[in-house]
Amino acid sequence: MAKIAFIGLGNMGGPMAANLIAAGHEVTGFDLAPASIDEARKAGAAIAGSAAEAVRTAEIVVSMLPAGKHVLGVWRDIAAAAPKGALFIDSSTIDVDSARAAHEIARAAGHKSVDAPVSGGTGGAKAATLTFMCGGADEAFAAARPVLEKMGKKIVHCGGPGAGQAAKICNNMILGATMAATAEAFVLAEKLGLSHQALYDVSSTSSGQSWSLTTYCPVPGPVPTSPANNGYKPGFAAALMLKDLLLSQQAASAAGAATPMGAVATQLYALFNAAGHAGDDFSGIVNFLRGQSKA
Amino acid sequence: MAKIAFIGLGNMGGPMAANLIAAGHEVTGFDLAPASIDEARKAGAAIAGSAAEAVRTAEIVVSMLPAGKHVLGVWRDIAAAAPKGALFIDSSTIDVDSARAAHEIARAAGHKSVDAPVSGGTGGAKAATLTFMCGGADEAFAAARPVLEKMGKKIVHCGGPGAGQAAKICNNMILGATMAATAEAFVLAEKLGLSHQALYDVSSTSSGQSWSLTTYCPVPGPVPTSPANNGYKPGFAAALMLKDLLLSQQAASAAGAATPMGAVATQLYALFNAAGHAGDDFSGIVNFLRGQSKA
Amino acid sequence: MAKIAFIGLGNMGGPMAANLIAAGHEVTGFDLAPASIDEARKAGAAIAGSAAEAVRTAEIVVSMLPAGKHVLGVWRDIAAAAPKGALFIDSSTIDVDSARAAHEIARAAGHKSVDAPVSGGTGGAKAATLTFMCGGADEAFAAARPVLEKMGKKIVHCGGPGAGQAAKICNNMILGATMAATAEAFVLAEKLGLSHQALYDVSSTSSGQSWSLTTYCPVPGPVPTSPANNGYKPGFAAALMLKDLLLSQQAASAAGAATPMGAVATQLYALFNAAGHAGDDFSGIVNFLRGQSKA
Amino acid sequence: MAKIAFIGLGNMGGPMAANLIAAGHEVTGFDLAPASIDEARKAGAAIAGSAAEAVRTAEIVVSMLPAGKHVLGVWRDIAAAAPKGALFIDSSTIDVDSARAAHEIARAAGHKSVDAPVSGGTGGAKAATLTFMCGGADEAFAAARPVLEKMGKKIVHCGGPGAGQAAKICNNMILGATMAATAEAFVLAEKLGLSHQALYDVSSTSSGQSWSLTTYCPVPGPVPTSPANNGYKPGFAAALMLKDLLLSQQAASAAGAATPMGAVATQLYALFNAAGHAGDDFSGIVNFLRGQSKA
Repeated sequence: MAKIAFIGLGNMGGPMAANLIAAGHEVTGFDLAPASIDEARKAGAAIAGSAAEAVRTAEIVVSMLPAGKHVLGVWRDIAAAAPKGALFIDSSTIDVDSARAAHEIARAAGHKSVDAPVSGGTGGAKAATLTFMCGGADEAFAAARPVLEKMGKKIVHCGGPGAGQAAKICNNMILGATMAATAEAFVLAEKLGLSHQALYDVSSTSSGQSWSLTTYCPVPGPVPTSPANNGYKPGFAAALMLKDLLLSQQAASAAGAATPMGAVATQLYALFNAAGHAGDDFSGIVNFLRGQSKA
Repeated sequence: MAKIAFIGLGNMGGPMAANLIAAGHEVTGFDLAPASIDEARKAGAAIAGSAAEAVRTAEIVVSMLPAGKHVLGVWRDIAAAAPKGALFIDSSTIDVDSARAAHEIARAAGHKSVDAPVSGGTGGAKAATLTFMCGGADEAFAAARPVLEKMGKKIVHCGGPGAGQAAKICNNMILGATMAATAEAFVLAEKLGLSHQALYDVSSTSSGQSWSLTTYCPVPGPVPTSPANNGYKPGFAAALMLKDLLLSQQAASAAGAATPMGAVATQLYALFNAAGHAGDDFSGIVNFLRGQSKA
Repeated sequence: MAKIAFIGLGNMGGPMAANLIAAGHEVTGFDLAPASIDEARKAGAAIAGSAAEAVRTAEIVVSMLPAGKHVLGVWRDIAAAAPKGALFIDSSTIDVDSARAAHEIARAAGHKSVDAPVSGGTGGAKAATLTFMCGGADEAFAAARPVLEKMGKKIVHCGGPGAGQAAKICNNMILGATMAATAEAFVLAEKLGLSHQALYDVSSTSSGQSWSLTTYCPVPGPVPTSPANNGYKPGFAAALMLKDLLLSQQAASAAGAATPMGAVATQLYALFNAAGHAGDDFSGIVNFLRGQSKA
Repeated sequence: MAKIAFIGLGNMGGPMAANLIAAGHEVTGFDLAPASIDEARKAGAAIAGSAAEAVRTAEIVVSMLPAGKHVLGVWRDIAAAAPKGALFIDSSTIDVDSARAAHEIARAAGHKSVDAPVSGGTGGAKAATLTFMCGGADEAFAAARPVLEKMGKKIVHCGGPGAGQAAKICNNMILGATMAATAEAFVLAEKLGLSHQALYDVSSTSSGQSWSLTTYCPVPGPVPTSPANNGYKPGFAAALMLKDLLLSQQAASAAGAATPMGAVATQLYALFNAAGHAGDDFSGIVNFLRGQSKA
C-alpha cells in the first residue's frame, strides 16, 4: 500500500480520501477548514500542519481544490517538499491552461503528474463510483490508475497534460446546453397542450434523446429518480454548472473556438444564478424558462 | 383492404403510398409533378385528375405536403368531395395552428382526422420504418393506426388535435440544439488538442450523451454510419432542420414560450443555410462552426 | 375637411381621432369597448353601430387595431361598404404579410391604401407628435400625408405596400437589441467598479452612443427624463417591445433572414415578460440582467 | 519638456511616440521589431537596447503592447529600473485584472500609474485625435493629462485603477452588439423589400439611432465615409473587435455579470473571423449575416 498525501478534504476530497484509507493506503491529509480536518481524522487520516509537511514522505499526492490558482499555489509550495519521482494527481476541475502549468511545475521538480477531474458529485465520491477523466503521460496514467480505481469506477485516459480537464469541460458544455434545450422543449410542450409524458415518450426513443432527458429529466414524472421529483435539490448545483460553463468559454476564448450554443447556455445559467438559484439543481432552469422561481 | 386517396407523391409520399399498395390497399393518388405521378403509377397507384377526384370514393385520405398553407388549401378542396365519415390523415410537417385548422375543416365536413407527422426521412419512408407522431381523438387514432403501421414501425398517440405536430417540433428543437452544441464541443476539443475519439469515449458513456452524439456523431470516426463519414450527404438536410426549427420558433412565439437555445440553434442553421449548405446533412454545422465550408 | 371613419378608439386610436376632430375633420368612429366609445363621443366623434356603418360615406378610413387578424377581419367587412376610391389607412403595428394582404383587400375593392404604423406611444398620440412610417403607392401616400400630419409631426414614405411595417419592425429590432446590450454594459460596469456616469460620459460621446443610451438611458441618473428615473414606469412597455420583436422574428423567418442578435433580444424580453414585468418599461431589462425584479 | 520612455513602437505606439517628439518631449523608445525601431529613429526618438535601459532616466513611461501578459512582463522588468516616483502610463487594451496587477507593480516600486486605453485607431494615433479612457488616482491622472493631450483630443478620467480598461470594454461590447444588430436589420430590410436608405431615414432620426448607424453605417450609401463604401477595408478590423469582445466576456465571467447580447455578438465575430474575415472592417459582419463573403 502507498503513502498518499491528500490536499483538500472538503465535500469531495474528504470522502475520496476516506476511500483510499478504506482500501488500506496510508493517508496524510491537509486542509484549512477545522471541520474537514476533524472528518478526515475520524476517517483514519493523519493530519499535517501544512501542505508541504503532508507531502514530505509521500509517494503519491492528490489535490482537490476550488480553482486553478489554488492548485498552482499549492503545487508550487509542495513540489520541492515531496520526494523526487512522486506521482502528483490533481482532481480539481480547473481551466486547461492552469492544468498544463501544474504539470509543468511537477515535471520541473522531477515528479510524474496527471490531471484527473471527476464527474459523479458527492454521491459518487462517497460510493467510490466517480468517473475520472485523465490527462498526462502514459506512465503517469498507468501509475495513477490503481489509486483512482479505489475512488471511482470509470477511469479514462483522454490524452496528454490537460486532456482530462479538456474532456470534462467539453462534456459539461454539451450537458449544460442539452439540458437547457430539453427544458425549453418541455415548457414549449406545456404551452402547446402536449403532456410532459407524451414528449418524453416520443423523444426518449428518437432523435431528441439525451442523458439530460432519459436519466435526469428536468420535469417531474417521466424519470422518478431525477431531481425534478425532489424539489430540484441537487444533484448537480446550478452554481457548479455555471462554473464549468464559464471554464468552457474561457478555454474557447483562449483557443479561438466559436461556441454559440455554449455561450448562450452559459448566459442562461448566469441569469439563473443571479436570480438566486445557485443552490438549485441545474435542471431547475426549466422553472426559470417558465418564468417561475420554483416548480 | 381500404380505398385510400394519397395527396402528395414526392420523395416521402411516393414511397409511403407504395407501401400501402404493397400491403394490399387500393390507392388513388394525386400530385402536380408528372415525375411523381409516373413513379406512383409504376408502383400500382391509380392516378386522379385532381385532389377532389382522388378522394371521391375514399375511406381514408392521406396528405403529404410541404407546408400548412398547402394542407389547408387541399383539405378545403376535398373535405366536401370525400364520403362523409372518411378518415383524414395529414403526415406533412406543418405549424401547429394550421394543423388544428385542418382538423376543424375535417370535423366540419363530418370526417375523422389525425395529424401524423413523421421522422425517419426518405430511408424510413422506403423501408416502412417511419415513426408517426399522432394527434387527434382516440377513435380517429384507433382507425389510423393499422394504416400507419403499413408505413412505419412506431406509431405514437401524443394527444388531441395538433399534438403530433407539437411533439415533432419540440423533439426537433431539442435535436437541432443538441447537435449544434455537440458539434461545438468537438471543435473546442480540436483546439484544445483533445481527440475526437477521446471526447466521444468520455461523453458517450456520461452526461454528455445524446442521440446526436452516439447515433449521428457530427465528426468522422466514432460512429461509422453517421453522415460525417460520407461527406455530410443527408441524411437529414440542413434545409429541413431549419424548417423544423423555424416551426418551433413560430409555435413558441404564438404560444408565449421562451426558447433561447432553440432560437440560437435556429439562427445558426439560418446562417449555415445562407452560406450555401442547405443541401448538406445538418450535422455539417460542425464545419461551419470551424469556419470551413467542408470537412 | 374630410369625412373620416376611425375604427379602433383605444389608448392610441382615441387621441388620434380626437386630433382629427380638433383639426376640423368630420369623424365617425367605431369600437367594441363602451368606455372607448364614450371617450370618442366626448371628443366630438359620431359613433356608428358597426365598422361597416362607420365607413358608409367615408372618404378616408383609419384603423388602429391590435394585430393582423383584426385588421384583415375589419377590412374584409368594410371594403365593400365604403365608397369606391376611398383612402384606407392602417396605423396598427402588424406583420408585413398581413399588411400586404390588407392592401390587396383595399385594391380589389377599388380603394387606395397605406400602411402607416406609428412610433411615439400614447404621449405622442395625444400631443399629435407621432412618427408615421408609411408604405403604399405614391398617390395613396400623397393623399394620406395631410391627414397624418394632423396626428403626427414626422411622416415618412418608406416604399410600397408593407414598407411602413417593415421599417417599424426593423427599427424596433435594432432598438430592443441595442437597449439590452446597453443595459448589459451598465451591469458589467457596476461589477467592475465603474460608475454609471463614467460609462455614460465615455459612451455617449463615442462609438457606444445610441438613442437607448443618450435619450432613454436604462439606469437612473445620466438622462433625467428616462423611465429609469421614474421606477421604470412606461414609456414603452416590455410587452409592446416583445410584440414588435416577435413580429421582427416572424418576418425574418418568412423572408429567410438570419437575425441572431434580434433573436436573443426577443428571448430576453420573453423571459422578462414571463418573469412578470410585461408592464414595466422595456429599459427595466437592466434589472432582470442584474438578477433583481426592480431597480 | 519631459523625458519619456516609450515601450512598444508599432502601428499605434509609433505614431503616438512621434506626436510626443513633435510636441518637444525627449523620447527614448524600445521595441523588438527592427522596422518599428527604424521608424521611431526617423521620427527623432533615441533607441534603447532594452526596456529597462529605456526607462533608466525617464520621468514618464508609456507602454503600448498587445496583451496583459506583455504589459505585466515589461512592467516587472522596468519597475525597479525607473527613477522612483516616475509616472507609468499603459495605453494597451488589456483585461481589467491585468491592468490592476500592473498598477500594483508600479505602486510597489514607488511609481504613479494610469491605465489609459485608446479608441480612434491608427488614424487617430497619427492625427493625435485619440480618445483616452483613464483609470488611476487623481494625482496620477492629473500628471498624465498634459502628456496624453499631445496624443489625443479627448481625455476622460473614468475612475480608479482599471477603470479605463473597464470603460473601454463596456463601450466596445455595446459597439459590437449594436453594429451586429444594425447589420441584421439592414439584411432583414433587404429581404422585405425595404431600401437601405429608407431604413436609414427612419432609424437615423428615431429610436434605432446609434453611432454604428449614423457614423459607421454597415451598408454602402447612407454614410459616404463609412468603410462599407470602401470594400470594408478597416477602419476597425474584425480581429480587434473580437479581441475587445472576448475581453468583455472575460471580465463579465470574472465579475459574475450576465451579458447575453455581448456573448452572442462575441460568437458572431468569432464565426466571422473563423470564416476568414479577421482583416475586414467589423461592419462587414453584414455580409456574413447575408451569407456572402463580400459586399
